[in-house]
Amino acid sequence: KDSILQSMMEGLDQARQKILEANAVDMQNADRAGLSTTLQDRLFLSDARIDGMIQEIEDVITLPDPVGETLSAQRLDNGLELKKVCVPIGVIAMIYEARPNVTSDASVLCIKAGNAVILRGGKESINSNRAIAEVLASAGEAKGLPHGAIQLIQSTDRAIVKQLAQCSEYVDLIIPRGGEGLINAVTEMARVPVIKHYKGLCHIFVDCNVDIRSALEICENAKCQRPGVCNAMETLLVHSDIAEEFLPLLCERLATAGVEIRGDRKVLEAYSSAKLANEQDWHTEYLDLILSIKVVDGVFEAIRHINQYGSHHSDAILSEDKESQELFVQQVDSAAVYINASTRFTDGAQFGLGSEIGISTDKLHARGPMGLQELTTYKWIGLGSGQIRS
Amino acid sequence: KDSILQSMMEGLDQARQKILEANAVDMQNADRAGLSTTLQDRLFLSDARIDGMIQEIEDVITLPDPVGETLSAQRLDNGLELKKVCVPIGVIAMIYEARPNVTSDASVLCIKAGNAVILRGGKESINSNRAIAEVLASAGEAKGLPHGAIQLIQSTDRAIVKQLAQCSEYVDLIIPRGGEGLINAVTEMARVPVIKHYKGLCHIFVDCNVDIRSALEICENAKCQRPGVCNAMETLLVHSDIAEEFLPLLCERLATAGVEIRGDRKVLEAYSSAKLANEQDWHTEYLDLILSIKVVDGVFEAIRHINQYGSHHSDAILSEDKESQELFVQQVDSAAVYINASTRFTDGAQFGLGSEIGISTDKLHARGPMGLQELTTYKWIGLGSGQIRS
Repeated sequence: KDSILQSMMEGLDQARQKILEANAVDMQNADRAGLSTTLQDRLFLSDARIDGMIQEIEDVITLPDPVGETLSAQRLDNGLELKKVCVPIGVIAMIYEARPNVTSDASVLCIKAGNAVILRGGKESINSNRAIAEVLASAGEAKGLPHGAIQLIQSTDRAIVKQLAQCSEYVDLIIPRGGEGLINAVTEMARVPVIKHYKGLCHIFVDCNVDIRSALEICENAKCQRPGVCNAMETLLVHSDIAEEFLPLLCERLATAGVEIRGDRKVLEAYSSAKLANEQDWHTEYLDLILSIKVVDGVFEAIRHINQYGSHHSDAILSEDKESQELFVQQVDSAAVYINASTRFTDGAQFGLGSEIGISTDKLHARGPMGLQELTTYKWIGLGSGQIRS
Repeated sequence: KDSILQSMMEGLDQARQKILEANAVDMQNADRAGLSTTLQDRLFLSDARIDGMIQEIEDVITLPDPVGETLSAQRLDNGLELKKVCVPIGVIAMIYEARPNVTSDASVLCIKAGNAVILRGGKESINSNRAIAEVLASAGEAKGLPHGAIQLIQSTDRAIVKQLAQCSEYVDLIIPRGGEGLINAVTEMARVPVIKHYKGLCHIFVDCNVDIRSALEICENAKCQRPGVCNAMETLLVHSDIAEEFLPLLCERLATAGVEIRGDRKVLEAYSSAKLANEQDWHTEYLDLILSIKVVDGVFEAIRHINQYGSHHSDAILSEDKESQELFVQQVDSAAVYINASTRFTDGAQFGLGSEIGISTDKLHARGPMGLQELTTYKWIGLGSGQIRS
C-alpha cells in the first residue's frame, strides 16, 4: 500500500499543470457564480497547496498500518484460539464541500486502511476533483491498486447522492463532512451507516473561580489563532459573579484583535460596545472574527446551554474549582472536553492519531478525530481443531 | 448501579404472579390469532423462564462496569493531559420481536452501561412486556434509578417506531433485533444511528482436504445442537472433489437426527433422498431441522456464495489446507469466521464478553456479540494548565 501511495505522490507532482488548469476553470466558474471570497479561497489551488497534498501523503506513508493487527487474543477452555483482528471497513463514501484537497487526503487515508473510496465533492470543485482523482487512481493502479478503488462521482446531479446513500448492498459507510444542510440531507436519505462530521460550534465557559490572566490568553487563542476552523470558539459563557471584572478586559483585548462581540444584555452592561446577540447567534458557527457571549448563573446553566446549542465537538471550562471541572467534563456531551486549555487542540495530529479524515461529532464507532484506526473495523477469527459446542 | 440491578432481581421475583398473568393474556391472544407454535414458544413465560431472567441480572451484576475506564492516556509535549475515557452512549432504543425476556435482558445491560433504554417489543408480547418493564422501572427507581431511564412504548401503533427512529435529538442509537422485515423497516426510516442485529444465515464450507470424522461432528453440531438460534448452520457448501465421499455419510447421519436435506442436483446425485433446493433456500434462515446443501468448485466459489447469500454473522471452513483457510478467513465478510470449529460459538459469554444484548451483523462500532463495552462510547478529556495552540 505504501508503494501505491508513493506513486500517488509522484503522480500529483507530475500533474501539477493539469490540476492547476482544471482548478482555474473552477475558479472562473466560481467568480461568474459570485461565490463568496471565503468559498473561493477554499476552492483555490496553488503549487503550495499541491505541495500540502503531497506532504499529507508522505505523512500517511509514515503511519503504521492498522490492518491485520490483533486487537485481542484468547484461548478458550476448549482450545479454540479466538482473535479479534483489525480489518478494513470496505467501501467508504465521502461527501464533502468545496475543498479539492479533501479528494486527495480522504482517498489516501481510505486506501492506507485498505478501503475503497467513493468521492463526492462540492459541484464548485468538480474540475479540480476530477483531475486529482484521475491522477491518484492511475498512479495507484500502476502499482497494483485495484481498478475502481478510488472513484469520483462525475455527475453533479444531487439525486446521485441519494442513490449512493441508499446503496447498502455496496457501501459500508458514508461520511458527510460539512454544514447543517449537507448533514441533514445525507442523514435523512441514508440507509447506509453514517458518521457525521458536523460543524464545530465550540464553547468556553469561564467560571467565577478562575485564573483571569490564563483565561484571557485561552479565550483569545481559541477565537483568534485560526478563526476559520471547526475547533475555534464560537460562543463564550461567563459566570455572572465574574462578568463585571472579566468581560471588559476580554472584550477590549478581542476588539483590538479585530473581533466583533455579540452579547446578551448583561454583556452589554459590562461592555457597552458589544452588539446585542439574538437567538440565532447561539446557533451560529461563525468561522470568522465574531464571538457571541452570554452571562450564565453557573456551571449547570453553562452545561445546559452547551448541550442545547453546541455541535458536540469541543468545549472547555476555565476554572480552579474541582467540582465544577468534574461536573462539566461528565455532563457536557461532546467529543472533546477541556479543562483550562484552548478548544483548538481537537485534531488528529495533536491527539497522536496522525492524519485524520475529519472530526466525528457522532458517538458511535468514532468520536472526535477520525484517523486510520477509525477507518477500520474488526472481525473475530476462531482457529479450531474440531471444537463443537456442548 | 449494581444495587439498582439487585432491586430489579427482587422485584421480578416478587412479581412472578403478575408477570405470569399478563403473559397468560398474551398467550390467549396468540392462540386466538393462530400464531405458530414456534412463535408461541418464544412468547411463553414460566417460573423457570423468570428464573432465567433473574439469573441474567445476577450475571450482569458480576460483570465489571466499563464506564469511567481510561482507554488511553498521554501527556502532550505542551503538558496537556489527554485521556480517552469510556462513557455511556446515552439513550438506546431497542426494537425486538416476540421474546418477553428481552425486555429485562436489554434493560439490565443498558442500565449497567449507564444508558437509558426505550423498549419496543412485538405487539404479541405487549402485556408481558408492560408487566416486566413496570417492575424493573419501579424496583430500580426505589434504589435511585432516574425516572424514565427504562421506558416501554405502551402503544402497538407502528407509526411510533418511525417517530422513534427519527428522533435524533433524543435517541443516540437504535438496535433492531430480528428478521428481514423489521430490519429493513427500521433502516429505511431511521435518522438515528442503527446497529442491526440481523438474522444468522450461517454457512460451513467443507474443503476437499479435510478430516472427515471431525467434519461430520462439526456439521452435526452446527445444525442440530440448537437449531433455533442465530449461530446454527443453515447452508452447507461442499467441495466437489469430496462430495461423493462426504455427502452420503453426512446426510445419513443428519437424516437420523431428523434433519430435512435440500440440495442442488449434485447433492441429489450423491444422496438421492434429498429434496431439490430452490433459489429461495439459499436465502433462508430455517431456524429448524432443515439444511440446504450446495456443491461448489472450491474455496473461491464458497466465499462468493457466502458473501452473496449470507447475513455476515458466522461462517466456518473445515480444511487442512492453510492457503484455503487463509483465503476464507480474509475474504468472508462476516462478524465471526471459524477454521475447523462449529459456528455455534458466536456468543457473548463464549467470547468472554459476558452477557450480550445481541449479535451485531453490522461493521461499525460493534461487530458480532455486543456486550457491555459495546454499549458504551468514549470522550476525550484534556486537563490543562493554560495551554494554548501556537
